Amino acid sequence: MPNDIDNDKKYWVGFDLGGTKMLSTVYNKQFELCGKHRTKTKGHDGSKAGVNRMINTIRQSIVDADIAVKDISGIGIGCPGPLDLDRGILESAPNLGWTNVAIKDSLEDELNCGVHLMNDVDAGVYGEYRFGAGQNCRTIVGVFPGTGIGGGCVYDGKILRGAKSTCMEIGHMQVVPDGPLCGCGKRGCLEAVASRLVIASQAAAAAYRGQAPHLMQNQGTDISRIRSGALKEAIHSGDAVIDQIVRNAARYIGIAVANIVHLLAPDKIILGGGMVEALPDLFVTEVKKIAVARVLPSFIDSFDVVAAELGDLASVLGAAAWAERSTDGSA
Amino acid sequence: MPNDIDNDKKYWVGFDLGGTKMLSTVYNKQFELCGKHRTKTKGHDGSKAGVNRMINTIRQSIVDADIAVKDISGIGIGCPGPLDLDRGILESAPNLGWTNVAIKDSLEDELNCGVHLMNDVDAGVYGEYRFGAGQNCRTIVGVFPGTGIGGGCVYDGKILRGAKSTCMEIGHMQVVPDGPLCGCGKRGCLEAVASRLVIASQAAAAAYRGQAPHLMQNQGTDISRIRSGALKEAIHSGDAVIDQIVRNAARYIGIAVANIVHLLAPDKIILGGGMVEALPDLFVTEVKKIAVARVLPSFIDSFDVVAAELGDLASVLGAAAWAERSTDGSA
Repeated sequence: MPNDIDNDKKYWVGFDLGGTKMLSTVYNKQFELCGKHRTKTKGHDGSKAGVNRMINTIRQSIVDADIAVKDISGIGIGCPGPLDLDRGILESAPNLGWTNVAIKDSLEDELNCGVHLMNDVDAGVYGEYRFGAGQNCRTIVGVFPGTGIGGGCVYDGKILRGAKSTCMEIGHMQVVPDGPLCGCGKRGCLEAVASRLVIASQAAAAAYRGQAPHLMQNQGTDISRIRSGALKEAIHSGDAVIDQIVRNAARYIGIAVANIVHLLAPDKIILGGGMVEALPDLFVTEVKKIAVARVLPSFIDSFDVVAAELGDLASVLGAAAWAERSTDGSA
Repeated sequence: MPNDIDNDKKYWVGFDLGGTKMLSTVYNKQFELCGKHRTKTKGHDGSKAGVNRMINTIRQSIVDADIAVKDISGIGIGCPGPLDLDRGILESAPNLGWTNVAIKDSLEDELNCGVHLMNDVDAGVYGEYRFGAGQNCRTIVGVFPGTGIGGGCVYDGKILRGAKSTCMEIGHMQVVPDGPLCGCGKRGCLEAVASRLVIASQAAAAAYRGQAPHLMQNQGTDISRIRSGALKEAIHSGDAVIDQIVRNAARYIGIAVANIVHLLAPDKIILGGGMVEALPDLFVTEVKKIAVARVLPSFIDSFDVVAAELGDLASVLGAAAWAERSTDGSA
């Protein structure tokens, strides 16, 4: 789509490097979408081919915006971690099979503007902070239950950063001592009792036992088929046990949220990801109920639990806006 | 003691309002102690008398420093909470029986300089950050097990603040679902399994059972007599069960610390308070062991667990230094 507002040629690219696809978007100064392009990631082709695909995808989105590479002020890249933020290196992405990829240097060489790497969950949380459910808040925490459970925090307008860049690993907060084994090798992590993967496996067991006839009929017992939409469908069709399984997981998230409220006292907890998008009321209701019941009285009215508003666009918007903030020198 | 460095008359008062006593200290620009005065708090005399005692105590410490009230650039006050930081109001201090005390306004009227209220635990953590175990760190978290378990965080040079000013309520993180009842009315909080009060009550039970003969002989079974020094003495005299009780509590703190590392990724966790001062090696060893065993591999080398270095002076130093920082406009 052509773009009308190019008085000072300030455009920002927001990019999301996903496990199966990559998305590049171009925004103008007002953060209106001017162009985009999506490509398969094909991580197995290797990181060199992958970085070239990233560059081409960005170029295509710039063409789609009907502008030129020289009009781009900066590029924000949401990546799976761990990252070396200062040097702009993707240290390891097991999903892609990539290690130590100098994304920032490679892209800056080709595209002649500042490139800012960031954790993909942080990008999504920052997007919600700037343009979505977290607007006008001082502090927000995003919780995204998926295959794992990701988290991020914007504190006082900036993304909260840890000693080695990564933090807000909400999925590995222990909520059940000696609880189920987690993918990380420890026991009782939030991820081990409340991720979509755990919900799917419990749902498959219920289907196998004959307790979830609709799920059984539509998806069978293969957990790779039991995704967010399937859970929603089963619940709406009357598989009460699936409703119970999801609510039980949401309650563990509520305990973790109460712990986070006690520590960080954010204004808002924003729940996002495919499962929350499929069942927003269930998640918001259960998480809030448990969190309110767990926190000290003085915190009860200090926070709210809400669903994310921007869906898949949160991370590209957040990456583009973070590139702007980083370029202005205030990040 | 008289003071030699008064070239530009910049002195800071650091004040600690405790449940039984109040302490006022005067520091010069280099944060060398120039004067101090300690008074009983006598909270039951009411807040008006209490504020007058605060003002008199500050005046006495100024006299002790051999300077005048006009030489004071600012005053930092570490208070029990909850506080309204912006308006400088102590909203409620159950220990003192005070509610809604306009400390900032009252002191500013009398002493003609900026008064900065802060949470007393935050003051201690900030003191350690500036002058003690947390120097040269980007982010530190202080954990102070006492009657309850207090916490504070300095993030990027500033005290971490929540939506309603208070945060880092580490003592109310849930570590045991459906665990023992906590003073807050909820179950399984860290305080309910690891505070000095809980340790003392478990120690008294052990003494009653005949498992802790030294403790029994020296203190009996009254938990109000089983303070940090008594625990240390019992352990050093050979009451092995007391050692086990304290270590068990420290391990719960280790779980909470692992959760905090996953969320905030601080450089250092600083353990403080009377119990840690009495048994620093035990606490540092057990907390670190459990935390290291619980965190994701990428976090293992990212943090250290250490004992606080400044003892009681941490909070007055921190309050004075925070007054300086707030006066400079950077807080």
